Amino acid sequence: MLLRQIFDPYLAQYSYLIGCQKTGEALIIDPERDIDRYQTLARENGLRITAVTETHIHADFVSGAQEFSRLPGVSLYLSDEGGPEWTYAWSKGLPNMTLLKDGSVFTVGNIRIEAVHTPGHTPEHLSFLITDSGGGATEPIALATGDFLFVGDVGRPDLLESAAGIKNMMEPSARALSDSLRQRLAPYGDYLQILPAHGAGSACGKSLGAVPISTLGYERRFNAPFKLAMSNDDAFVKDILHGQPEPPPYFATMKRVNRDGIKITGGVPVVPHLSVEQLSHVITESQTKILDTRDNKEHFGLRHTKQAIWAPLHSPFFSVVAGSYLEENDKIVLIVERDSDVDNALRQLYRIGLDSILGWTTTAETQSANLPFEANEMIPFSSFNSAEARKEGLIVDVRLKAEHDAGHISGALSIPYTRLKTRLAELPQGKKVFVHCASGKRAALATSFLRSIGYTAVHIDGDFATCPAENPKNVA
Amino acid sequence: MLLRQIFDPYLAQYSYLIGCQKTGEALIIDPERDIDRYQTLARENGLRITAVTETHIHADFVSGAQEFSRLPGVSLYLSDEGGPEWTYAWSKGLPNMTLLKDGSVFTVGNIRIEAVHTPGHTPEHLSFLITDSGGGATEPIALATGDFLFVGDVGRPDLLESAAGIKNMMEPSARALSDSLRQRLAPYGDYLQILPAHGAGSACGKSLGAVPISTLGYERRFNAPFKLAMSNDDAFVKDILHGQPEPPPYFATMKRVNRDGIKITGGVPVVPHLSVEQLSHVITESQTKILDTRDNKEHFGLRHTKQAIWAPLHSPFFSVVAGSYLEENDKIVLIVERDSDVDNALRQLYRIGLDSILGWTTTAETQSANLPFEANEMIPFSSFNSAEARKEGLIVDVRLKAEHDAGHISGALSIPYTRLKTRLAELPQGKKVFVHCASGKRAALATSFLRSIGYTAVHIDGDFATCPAENPKNVA
Amino acid sequence: MLLRQIFDPYLAQYSYLIGCQKTGEALIIDPERDIDRYQTLARENGLRITAVTETHIHADFVSGAQEFSRLPGVSLYLSDEGGPEWTYAWSKGLPNMTLLKDGSVFTVGNIRIEAVHTPGHTPEHLSFLITDSGGGATEPIALATGDFLFVGDVGRPDLLESAAGIKNMMEPSARALSDSLRQRLAPYGDYLQILPAHGAGSACGKSLGAVPISTLGYERRFNAPFKLAMSNDDAFVKDILHGQPEPPPYFATMKRVNRDGIKITGGVPVVPHLSVEQLSHVITESQTKILDTRDNKEHFGLRHTKQAIWAPLHSPFFSVVAGSYLEENDKIVLIVERDSDVDNALRQLYRIGLDSILGWTTTAETQSANLPFEANEMIPFSSFNSAEARKEGLIVDVRLKAEHDAGHISGALSIPYTRLKTRLAELPQGKKVFVHCASGKRAALATSFLRSIGYTAVHIDGDFATCPAENPKNVA
Amino acid sequence: MLLRQIFDPYLAQYSYLIGCQKTGEALIIDPERDIDRYQTLARENGLRITAVTETHIHADFVSGAQEFSRLPGVSLYLSDEGGPEWTYAWSKGLPNMTLLKDGSVFTVGNIRIEAVHTPGHTPEHLSFLITDSGGGATEPIALATGDFLFVGDVGRPDLLESAAGIKNMMEPSARALSDSLRQRLAPYGDYLQILPAHGAGSACGKSLGAVPISTLGYERRFNAPFKLAMSNDDAFVKDILHGQPEPPPYFATMKRVNRDGIKITGGVPVVPHLSVEQLSHVITESQTKILDTRDNKEHFGLRHTKQAIWAPLHSPFFSVVAGSYLEENDKIVLIVERDSDVDNALRQLYRIGLDSILGWTTTAETQSANLPFEANEMIPFSSFNSAEARKEGLIVDVRLKAEHDAGHISGALSIPYTRLKTRLAELPQGKKVFVHCASGKRAALATSFLRSIGYTAVHIDGDFATCPAENPKNVA
Repeated sequence: MLLRQIFDPYLAQYSYLIGCQKTGEALIIDPERDIDRYQTLARENGLRITAVTETHIHADFVSGAQEFSRLPGVSLYLSDEGGPEWTYAWSKGLPNMTLLKDGSVFTVGNIRIEAVHTPGHTPEHLSFLITDSGGGATEPIALATGDFLFVGDVGRPDLLESAAGIKNMMEPSARALSDSLRQRLAPYGDYLQILPAHGAGSACGKSLGAVPISTLGYERRFNAPFKLAMSNDDAFVKDILHGQPEPPPYFATMKRVNRDGIKITGGVPVVPHLSVEQLSHVITESQTKILDTRDNKEHFGLRHTKQAIWAPLHSPFFSVVAGSYLEENDKIVLIVERDSDVDNALRQLYRIGLDSILGWTTTAETQSANLPFEANEMIPFSSFNSAEARKEGLIVDVRLKAEHDAGHISGALSIPYTRLKTRLAELPQGKKVFVHCASGKRAALATSFLRSIGYTAVHIDGDFATCPAENPKNVA
Repeated sequence: MLLRQIFDPYLAQYSYLIGCQKTGEALIIDPERDIDRYQTLARENGLRITAVTETHIHADFVSGAQEFSRLPGVSLYLSDEGGPEWTYAWSKGLPNMTLLKDGSVFTVGNIRIEAVHTPGHTPEHLSFLITDSGGGATEPIALATGDFLFVGDVGRPDLLESAAGIKNMMEPSARALSDSLRQRLAPYGDYLQILPAHGAGSACGKSLGAVPISTLGYERRFNAPFKLAMSNDDAFVKDILHGQPEPPPYFATMKRVNRDGIKITGGVPVVPHLSVEQLSHVITESQTKILDTRDNKEHFGLRHTKQAIWAPLHSPFFSVVAGSYLEENDKIVLIVERDSDVDNALRQLYRIGLDSILGWTTTAETQSANLPFEANEMIPFSSFNSAEARKEGLIVDVRLKAEHDAGHISGALSIPYTRLKTRLAELPQGKKVFVHCASGKRAALATSFLRSIGYTAVHIDGDFATCPAENPKNVA
Repeated sequence: MLLRQIFDPYLAQYSYLIGCQKTGEALIIDPERDIDRYQTLARENGLRITAVTETHIHADFVSGAQEFSRLPGVSLYLSDEGGPEWTYAWSKGLPNMTLLKDGSVFTVGNIRIEAVHTPGHTPEHLSFLITDSGGGATEPIALATGDFLFVGDVGRPDLLESAAGIKNMMEPSARALSDSLRQRLAPYGDYLQILPAHGAGSACGKSLGAVPISTLGYERRFNAPFKLAMSNDDAFVKDILHGQPEPPPYFATMKRVNRDGIKITGGVPVVPHLSVEQLSHVITESQTKILDTRDNKEHFGLRHTKQAIWAPLHSPFFSVVAGSYLEENDKIVLIVERDSDVDNALRQLYRIGLDSILGWTTTAETQSANLPFEANEMIPFSSFNSAEARKEGLIVDVRLKAEHDAGHISGALSIPYTRLKTRLAELPQGKKVFVHCASGKRAALATSFLRSIGYTAVHIDGDFATCPAENPKNVA
Repeated sequence: MLLRQIFDPYLAQYSYLIGCQKTGEALIIDPERDIDRYQTLARENGLRITAVTETHIHADFVSGAQEFSRLPGVSLYLSDEGGPEWTYAWSKGLPNMTLLKDGSVFTVGNIRIEAVHTPGHTPEHLSFLITDSGGGATEPIALATGDFLFVGDVGRPDLLESAAGIKNMMEPSARALSDSLRQRLAPYGDYLQILPAHGAGSACGKSLGAVPISTLGYERRFNAPFKLAMSNDDAFVKDILHGQPEPPPYFATMKRVNRDGIKITGGVPVVPHLSVEQLSHVITESQTKILDTRDNKEHFGLRHTKQAIWAPLHSPFFSVVAGSYLEENDKIVLIVERDSDVDNALRQLYRIGLDSILGWTTTAETQSANLPFEANEMIPFSSFNSAEARKEGLIVDVRLKAEHDAGHISGALSIPYTRLKTRLAELPQGKKVFVHCASGKRAALATSFLRSIGYTAVHIDGDFATCPAENPKNVA
């Protein structure tokens, strides 16, 4: 048996390649949409992908299952648990599709995979128990736990309500998760490897570690929410629903397309370079959205194309910004620092279903073009006068709700930066909007978005703790 | 003024980027279809392409003019000479199109371009006289001569008849070329730079050098056919029509699509990797053609996928093979040595209008797959018994007609390797076909093609001069 | 805590990067000599390497510890167990060196590392117990086991005798290994992650899996030699000493340089391309060894530079060939298929201490050069007449001794291909040497080596089972 | 004959590869020090470099002739003109060296090269008349003119005095150049191709074009200084010595090493990445010089490592800064934006003889390190109060002397930015130095240098024309 974990550092997502070297067959668990990476990896290991499965209907990326479903020789295994609301619609009638119930078993070469229903994060959620039968084992070696159990954390049971807008789902989901933690893992020994679908940095859990895999025994001992679920159901439910980061709006779209279908494209789209003429032309069209992908906050703030939204490419913020501030049908223009960044940017957008890319250009080119430029209006936190600001307009705190609740500037409105687009009605027209966070970074993202759609947003930069008079310690 | 020559070593083709640094505008002369290369080059030099022209309706590649025609801010300049048969159909009604007559002038920034009608290679052929007005010059600096005048050679006047099948065109074309050489260059001084559209290796001329550009004075002194045209019209016509390489069939298609139109794709197509399953599947379909792109003749001969046509990628033979043995609608599978070869192969096919590529795989993968393999049946020239061969089947000489005429094996049928597909009716069914050339290379290409379509072809390898008994010295 | 496993597919070796994200410090366990890879990985994860350790004095590669020892800000931790014979000589007096005894503890940021003496593979062998104190854990998360415990296998206790030539070490080592397995792992829970130093393909164990890490509980249940050691010491000793692959001679050198020191170079050497003139020149010098790195056995056999030793680059055979047939002071010339292969080849040689590389050239260039070429003399197994062969010379079986013992051709001399250079005295001068293995691959390697030093070696190719008359079933 | 022009866009330098395809031999004219580029190009064209020559002792880069001189099979051809002061010292006694006098002839394959003594830029300067004898030509096809005749310009006769400090050389050199222009080109026809050693952007001439090659006839008609030399010797001398850019100090070093010798290294040095610890360590040593290679002036100005000198990598300024502000023995640390920039930076330094590179790091790393940072003190030209500045310190105009002479701020001291290091004595200690140029760019370079060595320099940024009160129109 061959096992490889494939990490997407931007979504902090893990897929798995599990292959039987004797037969040359391989399984992919939880692929992202740009499946060429898995195909290349399989190929380099002398394997061919003959089976694809996923633990659940993902909310943070477009699953690669649909892309795989069109390839000859690939069998798909999808959950049949969770009830009619959570039935895959896109795969109906596909001849190479097998539905899995709790306890269903399939094999890939000499490897045995058994579905274990582990609801909570989502109702249809499966984990996969992997047994290396070819290697002579009679017990499973690992459990691929998806968004059920992470290294040091558990999946979020609030997303269906907070992200997909399904009412009254949070608490039942949290209880289901608690039940799954208590009941569905009980049969297995401490030595079982835990293969999670997310690592540090994902919006799918609160405190994920950077240890890529774990063991059931270690999690039983040191995974705080897991331990809580084992001992106190109510406390677990209360705790797990508290302080989760507010999901970006695109999560709702992902849920829909992963269940109901999305265009199968055969790969990351090819996107042309835009000349200065083309750029000037498209930039004026109403549906065009410009993503400035520079990594440096100060450089963006100093001077950027008018309307550009700041989306630092080499960070998890890129897809959060794209998924929070753009919509499926927006026409996107990318501004990259170097040509070699284009593939990365296109992949990240493709992974979250943003395919309408008009083209790309480079920072250097935009600066030599005859485009309108602007600098951010910026005030350092240390010289920010909040009383004055309240007179001129509105102070918006774009940190998490939980951060806001722990201490904030008087009169500041809490709108987490990922939720801005859905709450624009709360912002005053024609007045200044003073945007702050804890360090200046999320505020810079939010400011650029608000300015791109016409608000007079002011970026409060720097450390929240340096805010005079009204610092976290003396806020009301 | 900025001048850059862009070389395609496979088609031995030169395009030109001519830019005005003061205004940032640039012209491309004779672009190939994958125009991203020109855009990148312009960009690296701080220029934007605002004008595109071509010297004539090309026969050896798909012009990039159509791809450029869709871009905002680009003006096209096309020939209006040569009569109704040679009128561009695809550009009719395009608002950014300007037709050029002999003497027409347009400018790109401070650079002046004047069209000079130079028929012969084709009736509509223009050359472009370039004057660096911005640099203060009052006389032209260069003439972009297309396929009219090369370094050490002149364009072929036979192609319209030999490639495009237009009857009785050869001699009138040759006389037109002779007239153009005598009359259209006469006004210019020796110091004029000559910027040709082809260099060494092209099928568009007989003896091209590897000196990228020349001067009119040097060509007047040392270009043999040019000198002949100046002194003896009849001798020139006779000479120029003798010994030209037989054009591959795709030349006729190129002529058509460059005049009448081809699908504008926006770039080289993206093509998936094929798994072994997919490969096994498509390989059996009748329209699928497999190109094995290894460079090494012996390696291909030793063992290759059944039906594979040998098309060595890193040589001019690749596009000649593709253009001689494939058709527009063939579904192509590429076998490459390494992943990094794919882009090169796709570009070369795209340049000659072959866009229906099913996918690619690597030599290593095919060899681990469960595919039918075979070796070439090969006989070294030194042990070839031609008398015996004639009994068993037919000897086919795939060298140029001119080489055949200079000495050949008794009874050998001359079919230049580029013309095989059009002359299959002359080959006996059910009998062996012994294929030879001068060194074994062209014979290997031809043999693989014949075997791919079911003939029992035998590859005679090695040096023609080592052929016993019936060597060139004693053939009838 | 951040954990990354770094895999060298050629030596099947795992190094580990273990970092504390809070302090930015990181530890490398068991680095190979080309340490730039670890530095880049640390950098990409926002960490800096401040500590380096190794489980034991390696036999299969030059440890990177010496390269790290010269860098400011890096502390080294080396074993002080095993007695005076196994004391590191190169690190004596280095201010940044700490010696570790069983139970010694050091920290890297908030991570605690405890040395556990686990002799057997070697006397000084340590394993490292890793506790994520920063993550709040009070129990270890993993044990880095070096060559003590693998996934599905245990380290080899025979190497010091079979590779380094230390007499009467095998059985005591095997007993020590057995003791370590029984006693040193006993304290730990099933859930402990096992981080081994080798995976599938290494010469350091018999049956390693391709699952990169494991758990102690899983190994207790399914690791056959481990289970045997737990139940029956004598049976374990007998079993573990049987059937191990014969180590290549360079293992002895590695042992020496990793204990006593090797030149610190600061990185993989830069090596010039050789022109044809230079190649012709160096090829005639007596100490020059030519490695032909093509992957394809048939292509090498068909035609190669005289004296070239076949060392397929993209396989574990490359370093085995280099380490079996070359010596430290040999002047090496590399023939690669493409320029892009050079870095890979240089790294692999550098990792095993071969730094005297004269230069490189490509297959294509050698073939256009005026060099002496030759083909292998090859006989397919299916038409091999062993009786005849015995008359003409000697049949040499280059498979493992264990394979030979299980069945062989009458009269065939067993010399495993990795030991040939040390047993040349057994080969007859002036007579043919017929070289075979099980599939033709190892025989091809061995044949090329013998021919490179003047023997008239004949390559028996193909499947041993197809050998007529004297197949494995009816050998004496 | 094959001809390739190799362009170094940073030094605006042209080398030439001239090959005889029949024999496979090739000549390089005027190689730069990193000769691997020429070797690769030759190889790609099926050629091997067997001859190397140069037109003169270069001042702007280290010639590659010395690197080539150590390779077997390479013949060197060097000038024996110009008298004892200009005799190559490094090549004395080399067996593969041939000295050339005016009229000397050598061949490379079937190509004939004749030396033509063309003093003026330097006394030993040769041009090379190239005749394609193999192509049947009886007259030369091209003249490689080095720094004698450019496209649209002529070489500088002032450098030996202005750069190398040889007194009273300017006017005699200018007259020699005038003589060479009148006399040495007279024998040749208009059609001769002119292959210069520099194009647009070089410091070796005043107004070079971006047309890569020219013809003698075109230059006779449109090259202003050439025409002047033909008609009026005195006017030419006066004109040519006026307004030349002040050469950077490294020119003197280049003259020395190209005549007397420099260490032959075998290639661009390999340089390690520096960890933050190493960086902190070396940064405090007195001889360490830090080059910050970011291209964006504002980004550098905003925040950079203290002591860093700004040297924008992707521009000709990089080597000018390095050659103006660094010395041979300085220990250099490179700060690059991306790893992929390192090779470019190392090559550019290597080309001008700066080999002592301690290592490199990236902008991102320095910013996360605990290093001292600073911003430039910057005043926009539009709000610059020159009267006030004069009170506080000294205004320094770092434009060319010729620009200064055409109009300047009252009291501003003219020190061209390339000459600052040699004129530090003119700057006041302990007072502010206000540095300006025409656009802010050269001033930014100069300011960073002055600050790096302890001056309190202030960067006047923006357009000189916007300077209030004392703009160019009303200066004294």
